[in-house]
Amino acid sequence: MQLTKFSDYALRILMFADSAGDRLVTIDQMSTSYQISRAHLTKVVNRLTRSEFLIAVRGRSGGLKLAKHPTEIRIGDVVRATEADFDVVECFGSGSVCVISGRCKLAGVMAQARDRFLATLDDYTLADIALKQRDFRQLEACAVP
Amino acid sequence: MQLTKFSDYALRILMFADSAGDRLVTIDQMSTSYQISRAHLTKVVNRLTRSEFLIAVRGRSGGLKLAKHPTEIRIGDVVRATEADFDVVECFGSGSVCVISGRCKLAGVMAQARDRFLATLDDYTLADIALKQRDFRQLEACAVP
Repeated sequence: MQLTKFSDYALRILMFADSAGDRLVTIDQMSTSYQISRAHLTKVVNRLTRSEFLIAVRGRSGGLKLAKHPTEIRIGDVVRATEADFDVVECFGSGSVCVISGRCKLAGVMAQARDRFLATLDDYTLADIALKQRDFRQLEACAVP
Repeated sequence: MQLTKFSDYALRILMFADSAGDRLVTIDQMSTSYQISRAHLTKVVNRLTRSEFLIAVRGRSGGLKLAKHPTEIRIGDVVRATEADFDVVECFGSGSVCVISGRCKLAGVMAQARDRFLATLDDYTLADIALKQRDFRQLEACAVP
């Protein structure tokens, strides 16, 4: 029972952007701090800008910043925007081949459990999991031998 | 966000055994009904007997039956016994390479969401998702062209 790395990285990116306040951050900075490839982070950033969690400012001194106040970014909403698949068991999907689909009551139980999982994440916003910028500075310092 | 096929199959096996009441069921019968390979089902059955959800009766007219009354088999306990990994995000694992592990508050939020997911499954037992044996008979009839 795991979320995808995509969702995990999305939350880390938002935490990084949050720690910078009004200042713009770059994918390069996040790549250095988190030791995650630029290519991976770029895909996730694109999703986060399309989903209006991040704003991309173009140009030479451009970069990224949060599109909303951190108290307005619910963790559940981020995961809904980034997690490709909430089909907890096979029969949730449109291509289900389980032969008891339709009669089986398990799907309803699993859907309820999944909804409680997401409802718990909705109780928290980015502000609740905020880190200070110095936490990331320490990381960058550590990343250079 | 998915459970493994292993957990999914485990629940289907227990539902099949439950529908048979006191009569023994075989892996072959379940393989025919669910159209899942014998090899896959055998691995899951082994886990379910070791975890004391199923009893294997040896011998020529042997087979499998529930080890407890279906009202005593909580869905959450089955999933705990069959799901290999409850590391919702990478930092849950002992091999975490996330550089903010230790400072990050996300793990606590995710752990709480996971616990509510499992607590929801604990509200239900195998008896709540029981199927009648005729549901499986219809399947076997359908499986033969």
